[in-house]
Amino acid sequence: MPFDMIGGRTFYAYNSHFKNIMLKCFRKLSTSSSLMDKRYIPRRAVLYVPGSDERKLKKIPSLSADCIVMDCEDGVALSKKEDARSTIHQILQSQAIDFSGKDCSVRFNSVDSGLCEDDMKEILSASHLPATVHLPKVESPQQLEWFAGKMKDILKNSNLSEKLRLIIFTESASSLLDLPAICRRGVELSKDSPFKLDGIVFGSDDYCADIGATRTNEAKELSFARQYVVTVAKAFKLQAIDIVYINYKDLDGLKVQSEEGAGMGFTGKQVIHPGQVPVVQAAFSPRPEKVEWAADLVKAFEEHQRAGKGAFTFRGHMIDMPLLLQARNILQMASHS
Amino acid sequence: MPFDMIGGRTFYAYNSHFKNIMLKCFRKLSTSSSLMDKRYIPRRAVLYVPGSDERKLKKIPSLSADCIVMDCEDGVALSKKEDARSTIHQILQSQAIDFSGKDCSVRFNSVDSGLCEDDMKEILSASHLPATVHLPKVESPQQLEWFAGKMKDILKNSNLSEKLRLIIFTESASSLLDLPAICRRGVELSKDSPFKLDGIVFGSDDYCADIGATRTNEAKELSFARQYVVTVAKAFKLQAIDIVYINYKDLDGLKVQSEEGAGMGFTGKQVIHPGQVPVVQAAFSPRPEKVEWAADLVKAFEEHQRAGKGAFTFRGHMIDMPLLLQARNILQMASHS
Amino acid sequence: MPFDMIGGRTFYAYNSHFKNIMLKCFRKLSTSSSLMDKRYIPRRAVLYVPGSDERKLKKIPSLSADCIVMDCEDGVALSKKEDARSTIHQILQSQAIDFSGKDCSVRFNSVDSGLCEDDMKEILSASHLPATVHLPKVESPQQLEWFAGKMKDILKNSNLSEKLRLIIFTESASSLLDLPAICRRGVELSKDSPFKLDGIVFGSDDYCADIGATRTNEAKELSFARQYVVTVAKAFKLQAIDIVYINYKDLDGLKVQSEEGAGMGFTGKQVIHPGQVPVVQAAFSPRPEKVEWAADLVKAFEEHQRAGKGAFTFRGHMIDMPLLLQARNILQMASHS
Repeated sequence: MPFDMIGGRTFYAYNSHFKNIMLKCFRKLSTSSSLMDKRYIPRRAVLYVPGSDERKLKKIPSLSADCIVMDCEDGVALSKKEDARSTIHQILQSQAIDFSGKDCSVRFNSVDSGLCEDDMKEILSASHLPATVHLPKVESPQQLEWFAGKMKDILKNSNLSEKLRLIIFTESASSLLDLPAICRRGVELSKDSPFKLDGIVFGSDDYCADIGATRTNEAKELSFARQYVVTVAKAFKLQAIDIVYINYKDLDGLKVQSEEGAGMGFTGKQVIHPGQVPVVQAAFSPRPEKVEWAADLVKAFEEHQRAGKGAFTFRGHMIDMPLLLQARNILQMASHS
Repeated sequence: MPFDMIGGRTFYAYNSHFKNIMLKCFRKLSTSSSLMDKRYIPRRAVLYVPGSDERKLKKIPSLSADCIVMDCEDGVALSKKEDARSTIHQILQSQAIDFSGKDCSVRFNSVDSGLCEDDMKEILSASHLPATVHLPKVESPQQLEWFAGKMKDILKNSNLSEKLRLIIFTESASSLLDLPAICRRGVELSKDSPFKLDGIVFGSDDYCADIGATRTNEAKELSFARQYVVTVAKAFKLQAIDIVYINYKDLDGLKVQSEEGAGMGFTGKQVIHPGQVPVVQAAFSPRPEKVEWAADLVKAFEEHQRAGKGAFTFRGHMIDMPLLLQARNILQMASHS
Repeated sequence: MPFDMIGGRTFYAYNSHFKNIMLKCFRKLSTSSSLMDKRYIPRRAVLYVPGSDERKLKKIPSLSADCIVMDCEDGVALSKKEDARSTIHQILQSQAIDFSGKDCSVRFNSVDSGLCEDDMKEILSASHLPATVHLPKVESPQQLEWFAGKMKDILKNSNLSEKLRLIIFTESASSLLDLPAICRRGVELSKDSPFKLDGIVFGSDDYCADIGATRTNEAKELSFARQYVVTVAKAFKLQAIDIVYINYKDLDGLKVQSEEGAGMGFTGKQVIHPGQVPVVQAAFSPRPEKVEWAADLVKAFEEHQRAGKGAFTFRGHMIDMPLLLQARNILQMASHS
């Protein structure tokens, strides 16, 4: 067998038990239905558009962010909450706005706000659903249980071709401390819910207000919190979306912070201005040599599949599922840049 | 309704359920009895004075630190423990020393030392009690249970006009790991005890000795621990008191570390020399524009209260309880500077 | 009694209850059988040698690293796993290689690999056992239970003069999050197993791959993870072994990172090249004044023991068990440099 050593990360399909598991995984991965829920949705730049602002909503087709979030929450005044809901419902219902190539998302109000249920009822009754929903200020596993119950109820007669992706926000000290428990519950609930937990956003402004910290451009005051969010996200195989860079005119500072975040393991970043998108996307894009590696790996995998073989080595590395998925994700991200 | 959007932090008194809760909160806040236990005691600079050193104790009226701690613990030799106890008892009993404008505090020996019970018995039997007690080297929730039991027993015949505030110290690796559980228990015990858990001190010297770290002025080796202490403290709505700056002659270095700590969200800092107090207090004082904002907010709140209204907006922000409390705290701190 | 105050760290053998406990501890410490399992094995520089590479294995006597690890895992190609096992078995069996003055160690494959049991069976059946075994990629307390069960079974007829030390690796986000639970179980299992959990290695390359982080020489992206590993290790009284410095030709950079790690509280560092050993050992060696302090303390302790006294003070500090153990460790480390 041409088995060889693997740099850091090793996978041993050595004994038959492991080989069987691996073959099953490969087969599962190639089944399109399951692939639908597993496809990687790049969210390098995440941009919010107030659901109450029709002028800005109409500009969505011209925006280049990977993930566009029609917002019911912080971007919408309390007096405009009903407007935002019905406007977003209308956009989804009529498919009036072209989201092609973008992650069509909606951010609800938080569970604690008392507004979330009405948001869900109105928006999730549209005949076309957003690909992704964002739930801000998640404080506990119980809030996710409430959310899952409501969503199931509202969508009980819908025929989903694919689960909605769920992005949750951690924005307070207690939420950060409970983040592992929140994610664990979110992943469990994903099995039996119309959503699949897909990512965590670190909402650093509310977090700083909660802990009494003062934001700086260097964000040293957030070094623990940012790295902890990445660790928890990755422990549960979730995307991790980094903080906003407030000074939107300072693109050099944005570049530094974006590259730092990408280096820490974040998969994307929130932006507050369309002008921030190119800098952020560049920082969170895979480098050319990584794209080439990924393309070659996927090609080799497909050849092995056709030949009916299971486990295989590639450039001296034993190929495991996480590596193959990583390669596919890289290609999907690369196809967007 | 003049509801409006709120920058980062939002509060929705939208539906009637929430409005009622909010009105109750506002009413509760204005009741003076409950306000007593909720008033903010500023502890920007926390200074220890050995309970065995009468010369230093007599200087307390001339000290400008917000929080003066008469110490039974690390500042007192083992052979002087009994002296310290009886001296502190005497000072409290006779009110011989003027603590006005300061937080009159006592630090007991740790639960593990075997000295804590005798400290408590002697000091808490004085006819005037300290406003705040400090418990060092808290290692587990069980130690707080023991402490609460002893305190209840010792004070069972006392008529407290206000609960004693409790400040706990985290000074070891295992204590840091258990800090969320320790604080959770402390907050629970506060409901039914003569104390109210009010803050956490990060005792970095013992912590560094415990983990084998070498202290530096920049304290990079403590970046995780310091930020974690803030996060846990704020998750439980507690004050967070930062590390000592050892080199007490280096006021420039002290300024840098104080401002860094304040920026991280600490509410105060331990000092080891009266000369450190002004620098530390300046760093942990609210800025003038924040004081003005707070004064205006509290005024607006009081006008709304008189008019019998509940929820209201202020400068475009919906005002919630945390924000009002924050404003009151700022004013209390400002009145000390 | 000449009790005196202790700088930062205090120990009070004040009342008789505590004095008795302390005396028992001192007695236990001086019993040689228990001392065997408590002796400190310095692991300032930890060097891996592939178990399949006889040329490199033969060079072990010339290597100066404190801890030499004959590797079954990442350093060995899949096709060479059986070779590595039997070569290591042979070396242990024949005592062909002189490990004197070094920690003779073996790294098994991970529990998840499906290879660990065969590694253990072959290697632990040699008539001479390694002093230390390393278990990589520990993901859960359950893996340690499995490991303890296998080890007990394999060694049930062996007469161990001393327990094998166990070093575990944390190399993924989920492993890092579960590290306190993993260590707690490891310490519990140590009581009734042929091993004693002795240290944690932070395997940063696999960790970075797992969280999608990009390694830099400054390792800022790992500041939380590194400091967290130290905190957890020290909470359970374990050694903490720092990350590899990849660029093995850059000895200046290695020095900076080694001193930084030692300053954080790490007790040693992984090396990938013999040329890195002197720099790393220097950084993790106790300074001369600390060695002198330790020698004096141990001498004073022994004098007190002969005189039948228990607790005592040394240079104004009350001496407690951790301090005495620390002094012994320092002397053991110093004797290696």
